[in-house]
Amino acid sequence: MHSELVAALDIGGTKIAGALVDGGGAVLVRAQRPTPAREGGETVARAVEAVLAELTASPLWPGVRAIGIGSAGPVDAAAGTVSPVNVPAWRDFPLVDRVARAAGGTLPVRLVGDGVAIAAAEHWLGAARGHDNALCMVVSTGVGGGLVLDGRLHPGPTGNAGHIGHISVDLDGDLCPCGGRGCVERIASGPHIARRALDDGWRPGPDGDTTAAGVAAAARAGDPVAVASFERAARALAAGIAATATLVEIDIAVVGGGVAGAGEVLFGPLRRSLRDYATLSFVRDLTVAPALTGADAGLLGAAAAAVPDRWARTHTPASVGGHGG
Amino acid sequence: MHSELVAALDIGGTKIAGALVDGGGAVLVRAQRPTPAREGGETVARAVEAVLAELTASPLWPGVRAIGIGSAGPVDAAAGTVSPVNVPAWRDFPLVDRVARAAGGTLPVRLVGDGVAIAAAEHWLGAARGHDNALCMVVSTGVGGGLVLDGRLHPGPTGNAGHIGHISVDLDGDLCPCGGRGCVERIASGPHIARRALDDGWRPGPDGDTTAAGVAAAARAGDPVAVASFERAARALAAGIAATATLVEIDIAVVGGGVAGAGEVLFGPLRRSLRDYATLSFVRDLTVAPALTGADAGLLGAAAAAVPDRWARTHTPASVGGHGG
Repeated sequence: MHSELVAALDIGGTKIAGALVDGGGAVLVRAQRPTPAREGGETVARAVEAVLAELTASPLWPGVRAIGIGSAGPVDAAAGTVSPVNVPAWRDFPLVDRVARAAGGTLPVRLVGDGVAIAAAEHWLGAARGHDNALCMVVSTGVGGGLVLDGRLHPGPTGNAGHIGHISVDLDGDLCPCGGRGCVERIASGPHIARRALDDGWRPGPDGDTTAAGVAAAARAGDPVAVASFERAARALAAGIAATATLVEIDIAVVGGGVAGAGEVLFGPLRRSLRDYATLSFVRDLTVAPALTGADAGLLGAAAAAVPDRWARTHTPASVGGHGG
Repeated sequence: MHSELVAALDIGGTKIAGALVDGGGAVLVRAQRPTPAREGGETVARAVEAVLAELTASPLWPGVRAIGIGSAGPVDAAAGTVSPVNVPAWRDFPLVDRVARAAGGTLPVRLVGDGVAIAAAEHWLGAARGHDNALCMVVSTGVGGGLVLDGRLHPGPTGNAGHIGHISVDLDGDLCPCGGRGCVERIASGPHIARRALDDGWRPGPDGDTTAAGVAAAARAGDPVAVASFERAARALAAGIAATATLVEIDIAVVGGGVAGAGEVLFGPLRRSLRDYATLSFVRDLTVAPALTGADAGLLGAAAAAVPDRWARTHTPASVGGHGG
């Protein structure tokens, strides 16, 4: 009935979401708990187990063939552990083992970073569908992403590839909490769009909204400081997207997350700035599109990641190590 | 006798080199012509044919099973054409067809960009050997590179992937001839190392050497302006290498080319700067190493690229388009 039914877990700093997802991308069962992010590691783990318990109680559970986890990073897919920046009690926490045991110990469990999950979702069901080489990113409180190369997810050995928020596009720029300088996130995230507008003299309207959404509303109304702050964010995103295209050859960059909700206030200057940075012949036709998978992107991506034979590369040892010999 | 014998062509702005290379990486026959880069497209093509004619005249030629071409870029591997920046008469020049015909029309011909070829060479026989995820780059008059991901070359659909010289690490930086701003090449190439040192007051020694090699000699002798110019180059290279690692997860960056000949004058500050930019847990152990394949890198890489079943991914259509459906 529900061929390719999988369980998906989306683990973030504010909520832990779970679902049973069928082979067509329909979410059949849902469960959710707030993330007790400031509490001990066991308390966070029990919240995950509570979500899983709701899923395993479903009459559909016996049809589940695999479990996929998308987690806030960094993750270590090789070790099966997670160390989410915004869940301080989890450092090298053995999430894969824990989930496998809570689910009865028989199902394969696969872990990827949340940016990789978003890319899996957009490639499966969203704006990157049909594109063999794509960058999919989220621009909100932070900036993350994932890559599809040669038609398959590229999670990298540890499941963190595509981490565009922490590449430097301004080598002399402001220090980033990651330790780097001039990171894309440090310029283009929602909080930095709002901070820059406020620093430059923008003041919120009667609703008092001082977030990037408030800046976006002001920019739509023509406020030049608000427009300039989005233009600066767009420029950093364009430099990062162009760098990615120049390094691995992608033909589409999909942008989702709260800041992408600003629409043309972001996408207009982003497309213009891309022309300044994506200059070589093989990246000049790169397009940018808004993400389509919305609030369920994390769950759908975890579901896609649960079935790696759908996207993982066939890794033949004979082809490792180059030519001849 | 010479199993896996291939013909290799390395096409650059100053010379066209050819060789027959065996499965162990030994160069058995060589031919070379200067590139008539300022002449007409047909004249350049005839120089390629003259190199090929020397190879086909070899008694070993009947054992050749494939031809690999590494060319100055941009190339278009899908179309089989090249448009080298420094060979103005060749724009979308159908090099693959031309070489195939000159070689008798029966051998497979495969084209990659010269940066990709370097990566193939270093992965086959050099410092990236045994590394499944590597960036290999050349820093000389220009800055180029190529990627090995999951144990195989990643040329990208057009054969230009890994083009690290033209990613921006300084989004407000100087205009680059490519049209971008603050490109790695615009800061770290040999001519820019020399220009910056001269602009800042460095003067060459008695030998009058005003190239990056002269700056390197002065830096070794402790000249602070010369040291600072190399440090600036190292910083741009570090930001670019860290960006690459953060985007695709590599564990080694191999650096060759004339500027890498400066040794610790470059590699010392490069390793220090990497700590400033490669900050996330999954890139922190990234190492940097000098290239080992030397002057034959282009030929050896073209030879490696000639045999794609040694490195190309097995691309199963079933795994394209994601999950389920």
